[in-house]
Amino acid sequence: MSSFFQGLYGERVKDLRPSPIREMLHLVRRPGIISFAGGMPDPEAFPVELFYQAAGIIKSQGKDVLQYGTTEGYAPLKDFLIQWTAPRMGRKLEHDEMLITAGSSQVSDLLCWALIDKDDLILMEEPSFLGVFLNMHNHGAKFLTVPCDDEGMMVDLIPEKVERAQREGKKVKLCYTIANFHNPLGTTLSLERRRKLIEYAHRYGFAIMEDDPYGYVRFEGEHLPTLFSLDDRGVVIYAGSFSKILAPGTRVGWCCGHKDIIRKMAIFKQGVDVCTSLVAQAMVYEYCRLGHLDSFLPKIIDHYRKKRDAMEDAMRRHLPLEKLHWVKPQGGYFYWVKMDGIDCDRLFQVAVDKQVAFVPGKAFYPNRDGGDQEIRLCYTFASPEQTDQGMRRLGEAMREMIR
Amino acid sequence: MSSFFQGLYGERVKDLRPSPIREMLHLVRRPGIISFAGGMPDPEAFPVELFYQAAGIIKSQGKDVLQYGTTEGYAPLKDFLIQWTAPRMGRKLEHDEMLITAGSSQVSDLLCWALIDKDDLILMEEPSFLGVFLNMHNHGAKFLTVPCDDEGMMVDLIPEKVERAQREGKKVKLCYTIANFHNPLGTTLSLERRRKLIEYAHRYGFAIMEDDPYGYVRFEGEHLPTLFSLDDRGVVIYAGSFSKILAPGTRVGWCCGHKDIIRKMAIFKQGVDVCTSLVAQAMVYEYCRLGHLDSFLPKIIDHYRKKRDAMEDAMRRHLPLEKLHWVKPQGGYFYWVKMDGIDCDRLFQVAVDKQVAFVPGKAFYPNRDGGDQEIRLCYTFASPEQTDQGMRRLGEAMREMIR
Repeated sequence: MSSFFQGLYGERVKDLRPSPIREMLHLVRRPGIISFAGGMPDPEAFPVELFYQAAGIIKSQGKDVLQYGTTEGYAPLKDFLIQWTAPRMGRKLEHDEMLITAGSSQVSDLLCWALIDKDDLILMEEPSFLGVFLNMHNHGAKFLTVPCDDEGMMVDLIPEKVERAQREGKKVKLCYTIANFHNPLGTTLSLERRRKLIEYAHRYGFAIMEDDPYGYVRFEGEHLPTLFSLDDRGVVIYAGSFSKILAPGTRVGWCCGHKDIIRKMAIFKQGVDVCTSLVAQAMVYEYCRLGHLDSFLPKIIDHYRKKRDAMEDAMRRHLPLEKLHWVKPQGGYFYWVKMDGIDCDRLFQVAVDKQVAFVPGKAFYPNRDGGDQEIRLCYTFASPEQTDQGMRRLGEAMREMIR
Repeated sequence: MSSFFQGLYGERVKDLRPSPIREMLHLVRRPGIISFAGGMPDPEAFPVELFYQAAGIIKSQGKDVLQYGTTEGYAPLKDFLIQWTAPRMGRKLEHDEMLITAGSSQVSDLLCWALIDKDDLILMEEPSFLGVFLNMHNHGAKFLTVPCDDEGMMVDLIPEKVERAQREGKKVKLCYTIANFHNPLGTTLSLERRRKLIEYAHRYGFAIMEDDPYGYVRFEGEHLPTLFSLDDRGVVIYAGSFSKILAPGTRVGWCCGHKDIIRKMAIFKQGVDVCTSLVAQAMVYEYCRLGHLDSFLPKIIDHYRKKRDAMEDAMRRHLPLEKLHWVKPQGGYFYWVKMDGIDCDRLFQVAVDKQVAFVPGKAFYPNRDGGDQEIRLCYTFASPEQTDQGMRRLGEAMREMIR
């Protein structure tokens, strides 16, 4: 039976694209499969006992935290974040420069609500995080993509691209970037490129969304200054998240930016979901207040450093190195592997038959025109034993395809 | 300093309307003020201890519930809801007919994502719930309003209105209705009108969103069949919420409908917020599994019946009855008071000076063309003593204006 709704759908349904990763979640939970697909934290690295302790705030503050909250966010959590983020932000933020959101996904949704009209352009690293660009696509945005090398976005290409677009009468409203431990590339934007990106934003009048879910998960080397801290004109909206430094099941994130854009985003949020789950915000706050964020984060980082190393070892042990190129990431969740002469879709089929999964690279191309011979591997989820076993299977799959 | 963003805002910002109720939250939390404004539950009616007990699921299932969840919702919670809602839905739903959402606000947001193009029409009760229509307005919808009497929406007016709109080439996509204990009216749509509304939806090809946050909070009389259960063609999307039967701070709601529209809404949700807070969903589930929803709900209903009665008494005691008309609600949260010759905005100023707040009626008119002499009073939040004191102040304010 054809559904009653077929005749009612709006324009946005016509080119609606499901997230390949979200769709894959069902597949990769199949028993026996080893998954390097979803960017999921290791459940073994969740501070279960400490977070349960933080749930005590329900008992002590239940009358407040079971109530509706203000759309802008739970004030004690904002107070904490203002202190905690000050070193990265370059200063202590004001309350009206910060909004608590339903994960950092909601930051780009609200930003699009405020900025994007149909066919407006967004500068995107290519490849980029698909969860965000699928939502931007739903908002009617088009993508002006910037290629990346081992240092991240090749920002020197921006002026020519923006100038051409502006000559054609198009509006470049926003640049979306994951400057630290990029998803899916694993790369980190150099300081020089950060400064240039800010300069171009000022020159051409576009805003920057600095999405930084992985920034605190650095295994070695020094933190680079955030784009937010390098900017003196309020063009950067910084998005943070508890998903990778605590647990994604909370769905609590935040963003910082000029009070004018934060205010607009908050008004759109009033209609979208009223406020972020106050119970979840309160538990996250209590976890932070008790000192667990600072005490447990080094354990998470250490845990994932070992996993990154285990994957590097397993890749070197099992994969056909002569056909592959990758850069060892200094933090974050992902390896991005470029393959010479191996089609990622066909590899995916062979690999899944062998009970190992990854995300085909083409899923990360906003304009769907690349990534045929690239794959993303997440090293945080599988155990070291699974990683070794999974890489063995993946190596077999690759060799079958080379033959 | 004018913000950098002024030049970047999209069309949707130009007529962006903040929610008067959300904006008022700051005001009504001022010490000393008695608020009948926000539709807030009584914190005294939160099952704090029982919900804290339910937080035990973090300890026992932390590795699962701190992780990302599927966008469609936490499967055990859906299993529970499928059983629990069956009497109201008329049957047990399938999993793919249900989506867990960030409160029922998100239901209308996702539905608009799927259905609404700019200038599409939505049939709305007038007055109606502003949180929903402000979001619909942001989506570009226009409103075809239907007046209400003491039995709710005057559905007999629908054919003429829809036929005229269709003759003008406009698309009527959706009818939004709160059939039980309407916000702000407090009215309940009669069975006869429910049947007619379904008939018109079939005849004219529009969908119905049946928003039912208050349906389970009935003080007396018999439940009427849901629109969902009266419909045999899958045109109704039913929205439920834990906000009024447990606690709004969870931000957990759900919707039921044809699997085709539910699937589309889920894909939009992938981009909007990935999934509803899994920790919050899990605690709500555990609360239900332990039997607390069924055991505690009668206490909530009893509590609010007494508060409704306290407000009825206080209104009769303190207000200038000769100038007022209202209907005693059989459930829900609200009184809607029509005043003869008293301007609600001016009354609001005088009342706030006297430390009592309500929501001026005009806030609830989707097309901003009515409600000048109407106000909404919420009876659930204030204590009986506050209600008496607040009504005394409100009565004084009204009498000052009549003089």
